Amino acid sequence: MHNRLTPVADSNVTFRDPFWAPRRKVNRETTMAREYELLRQTGRLDAFNPKVKGVHQFWDSDTAKWIEAAAYTLGAEPDPELQKRVDTVVRRYVRAQAPDGYLNSYYQRVAPDKRWTNLRDMHELYCAGHLMEAAVARYTASGNDDLLQTLCRYADYIGSVFGTGKGKKRGYPGHPEIELALVRLYRATGQKRYLDLAAYFVNERGRYPYYYDIEAKARGDKPSPEKRGVAYNYCQAHLPTRRQETAEGHAVRACYLYAGMADVAAETGDDELKQACRKLWNNIVTRRMYITGSVGSTFAGERFTVDYDLPNEGAYAETCAAISLVFFAQRMLHLELDGSYADVMETALYNGVASGVSLDGTRFFYANRLAVYPALMERRISGQHFTSFRQPWFGCACCPPNIARLYASVGSYVASSSADRVALHLYTAGEVKAPVGDGTVRLAVKTDYPWDGEIAITVKPDSPRRFTLCLRIPGWCARPVVRLNGRRQTLSQVVQSGYAYLDREWQAGDLIELSFPMTVERVEGHPSARQVAGHVALRRGPVVYCLEECDNGADLADIELPRRAALTAERSKLLSGCVVIKGEGTRRLRDGWEDTLYRTARSKRAPVAIQAVPYCLWNNRDEGEMRVWIRES
Amino acid sequence: MHNRLTPVADSNVTFRDPFWAPRRKVNRETTMAREYELLRQTGRLDAFNPKVKGVHQFWDSDTAKWIEAAAYTLGAEPDPELQKRVDTVVRRYVRAQAPDGYLNSYYQRVAPDKRWTNLRDMHELYCAGHLMEAAVARYTASGNDDLLQTLCRYADYIGSVFGTGKGKKRGYPGHPEIELALVRLYRATGQKRYLDLAAYFVNERGRYPYYYDIEAKARGDKPSPEKRGVAYNYCQAHLPTRRQETAEGHAVRACYLYAGMADVAAETGDDELKQACRKLWNNIVTRRMYITGSVGSTFAGERFTVDYDLPNEGAYAETCAAISLVFFAQRMLHLELDGSYADVMETALYNGVASGVSLDGTRFFYANRLAVYPALMERRISGQHFTSFRQPWFGCACCPPNIARLYASVGSYVASSSADRVALHLYTAGEVKAPVGDGTVRLAVKTDYPWDGEIAITVKPDSPRRFTLCLRIPGWCARPVVRLNGRRQTLSQVVQSGYAYLDREWQAGDLIELSFPMTVERVEGHPSARQVAGHVALRRGPVVYCLEECDNGADLADIELPRRAALTAERSKLLSGCVVIKGEGTRRLRDGWEDTLYRTARSKRAPVAIQAVPYCLWNNRDEGEMRVWIRES
Repeated sequence: MHNRLTPVADSNVTFRDPFWAPRRKVNRETTMAREYELLRQTGRLDAFNPKVKGVHQFWDSDTAKWIEAAAYTLGAEPDPELQKRVDTVVRRYVRAQAPDGYLNSYYQRVAPDKRWTNLRDMHELYCAGHLMEAAVARYTASGNDDLLQTLCRYADYIGSVFGTGKGKKRGYPGHPEIELALVRLYRATGQKRYLDLAAYFVNERGRYPYYYDIEAKARGDKPSPEKRGVAYNYCQAHLPTRRQETAEGHAVRACYLYAGMADVAAETGDDELKQACRKLWNNIVTRRMYITGSVGSTFAGERFTVDYDLPNEGAYAETCAAISLVFFAQRMLHLELDGSYADVMETALYNGVASGVSLDGTRFFYANRLAVYPALMERRISGQHFTSFRQPWFGCACCPPNIARLYASVGSYVASSSADRVALHLYTAGEVKAPVGDGTVRLAVKTDYPWDGEIAITVKPDSPRRFTLCLRIPGWCARPVVRLNGRRQTLSQVVQSGYAYLDREWQAGDLIELSFPMTVERVEGHPSARQVAGHVALRRGPVVYCLEECDNGADLADIELPRRAALTAERSKLLSGCVVIKGEGTRRLRDGWEDTLYRTARSKRAPVAIQAVPYCLWNNRDEGEMRVWIRES
Repeated sequence: MHNRLTPVADSNVTFRDPFWAPRRKVNRETTMAREYELLRQTGRLDAFNPKVKGVHQFWDSDTAKWIEAAAYTLGAEPDPELQKRVDTVVRRYVRAQAPDGYLNSYYQRVAPDKRWTNLRDMHELYCAGHLMEAAVARYTASGNDDLLQTLCRYADYIGSVFGTGKGKKRGYPGHPEIELALVRLYRATGQKRYLDLAAYFVNERGRYPYYYDIEAKARGDKPSPEKRGVAYNYCQAHLPTRRQETAEGHAVRACYLYAGMADVAAETGDDELKQACRKLWNNIVTRRMYITGSVGSTFAGERFTVDYDLPNEGAYAETCAAISLVFFAQRMLHLELDGSYADVMETALYNGVASGVSLDGTRFFYANRLAVYPALMERRISGQHFTSFRQPWFGCACCPPNIARLYASVGSYVASSSADRVALHLYTAGEVKAPVGDGTVRLAVKTDYPWDGEIAITVKPDSPRRFTLCLRIPGWCARPVVRLNGRRQTLSQVVQSGYAYLDREWQAGDLIELSFPMTVERVEGHPSARQVAGHVALRRGPVVYCLEECDNGADLADIELPRRAALTAERSKLLSGCVVIKGEGTRRLRDGWEDTLYRTARSKRAPVAIQAVPYCLWNNRDEGEMRVWIRES
């Protein structure tokens, strides 16, 4: 066991909490089966079968994410039906591999002579990356290396095609993903050539002359008409990765790339690459991230836009983009144990990711807006991505299986360990079994988190064992208290970069009590964030709240929250159980507005009771308006 | 002279005011010549010449609007150079007319066998309408009927093709315009068949089965896949015009149609049609109009969206759409003399229309946003329509010549007269020479309007003459005072529907003094208008104000205006002379925001001086942010 922190596998984390345990149950019992059915019906699960029509360049990635989700699900709990299904699907991939190792249903079925001719647009390396992740997940969770062997052969073949060596193509993917996947393959197999290939893709990206121009010419297409430095920022290939300082282009591509960069930096110790990752991270979290941990403000290109541009109704905030930010955050956290990374990871998980799926696990948001006005969505904006309610499926089906694999593996974000440290990032009732040194420690966690910030952790090492327990002190908490066996710790002495370091020889039964008082916070945005100026968002613990029309009536924008209005948190049975926030706001009285659109300001305001619910839970009741940011008076 | 009010011709109105006089001068001296040059360079002015390439289906309309503008310009003041230019262009149209009367450069040059095969998309009748307007303007201003004769032949030919008679096509235009043009042709010639043809187009529109489906089938295209009642609302053909109750679809098409409907209703006395016009008018002005008199909230389809949906940064608010609303307002005002129509007409003229052109007459806005954030415009939104600064020209060049013809004819919106009435709608220094009964009356107007609301009108009938002088009492004015020869009138006795009716035998030298005190108004929007909730707009008289970055610094959204802050109006030399509004707002202090995007609300605010300038004048100095609506605290 080396000295770098490594995530504790999901299979070593059990959930008995009010948030993830029911979601994982629904994911296992409902979502996985529904997605199987939809993937099957659309032909994706049998894409190599000549009878299946309409094979699309994304299909392998959708199936791969479902295989990956199935692997985690089975790792947590056996399920013969699911096992049978996933084994069948995996067998098809294993059998379909070309003699040279190539494996891609679209190119093998539809365009066998076009392999590697359009890396920019065709998602070929992206699909390979997802299949690698699936293979690693399957192998790690079950020990079955059937798919892993197939993907190692594929990776070897890819390594024979791409690179700086003589006769190799100096290409890199249009949609990053394979970088982080190759690092996972390296970690699962110990084969350094996969890390080298990941590093090659990271380092080659964005060099001039652009490979995308070269391959376009080779195809007989025109190269990009855009000028150097702007061309290809959609896919983060406008500059060499180390010289990129702002998060640009398609948000999912961006964060998958940055996660891969951080992985490569962690494995190679490349400080320049680490520094590039930090700059990109800072640009996102200090300029370009929604309060929900969502990223990518605009539908046009599913892109990052400019600093401080975070439209609410117009938000794109793709579910996959919030998931990709979780990946990037987790990688940064393992580059350097700093609570600010975990804060963002937690925010995205409890808000921008969790909003992506309905409580019953059957419907999904592709775009996660921060304000919704249904009358408009029906008329001005069209298309599946823009409905004011969750959808059962999407033609471009990336989000549903991405959520499924994240929920099925959320345990791997809870804790990490190394030879001499165990770090707890997320607090969730249940048990974490972490390898540490040559043994293991069990951490039994009792808490009602995220609805309550009182946490009791009983430490159970396999035998008395010295190591440092690193406990995250959430950035949202103003007055944290840490007690060890009843003794209050002096945080100025033990806390560094958002983690409390408790170093001792741990005995079975050692008790840590964490008190992170959850008050209702009114959050303001940076003065340059024009779309939220004059507004506050309500946050309690890691959970961001919103107003829904079914609780507060229509015209939510007219609600004002006086600066000193009392806000109370109440445990409620609503929405399968959650904490709601109640308070008194005001609304304009509506008299005298007949046939008037504008008038000299003279409205009076009257008090109204308001109720806010967790943002991630909105649209689980009646369809209607929703707003995260509330005007403050 | 009949008893219905008729607009006084522009040539009978002289301007010596601070707003229109300089704009008309610039329009005459700069804009007309620039537009001539651009129309010439792009080939539009010589579109029938076989050497000219790329003839487009819109071209005739662009040229026609310029001919119309030239006619008004020459009607106000001779200009041999302009006269020569327009005569040459007109001669080309006169000569190009086909033997059967047809006249369309695109179809005659590019697709001679495709005439009348796609009324929905191809702007064929729209171009005809604009040529008719040009012909009427030329004839009315100069007596030269060359183009008028040509267009009468064309109209007669159109009447032989379309209608309910046996063997005729029951078609109607995709882009309305010909309806109001045919009524102008009827008024200029007295030929009732042109009114009948206008009425036919109005009445046929939107009947089921849809003509657009029928012609599509005849072309071999598919009919609309949309369901009945929704199909074709883009071009207001989803329902019979009389059954339309909400303003739908492309805003310019809509208001051109509604203007034509009102014209037909006025000439035929059709009460059902009048009622339909009133409903559509009310829907626009009480639900779907910007405070600037602009309409059409979204670029997607250049459309109206839904009630109360008036995005500011996202506004489309095409210059042509504000002009089309002026047309509709003027027609409604002549259907029934009601100040509410004149209020909207005035608002659009001084704000949403005037913002469409730079002070120097060389640059134009296509989209007139109510808030602009330049960093975003450069990155998220692309294309000529969406720049944060005015452009010299557009590929789709509808707006520049539309502004030119409106400015050159703005006199015709000032006053109207009939056998026994003279109505003054707009107050602008100069002189109005109105026919009344069998004589004329001159109204000499002294005022600094729109910068001041004190107005002195000296009445000069050709001989003592009894008639009613109808003086508009602006809706924006809370405490109007009307004096006749020094005697204050009791408004409750003389005012009806926004006009003061002064009925007497008028003597030369009778003096009317109007006092419309201009205070700085804070205007609020309807509580359902979510994009402006919590905001006020500043308005003084008919002029809407905005904040510009060059006066107030960046991050305008962070400026708050306390409800009781004093606001003062000052005559300024800025921007060629205007009234600016000064006051004290607040901004957040910016300490402690380093590397922070969100934080628990704790910002303090500090006072800042603010200066607002007329909205129509923005972007005549440095490029930067702009906002109409200011947050109120």
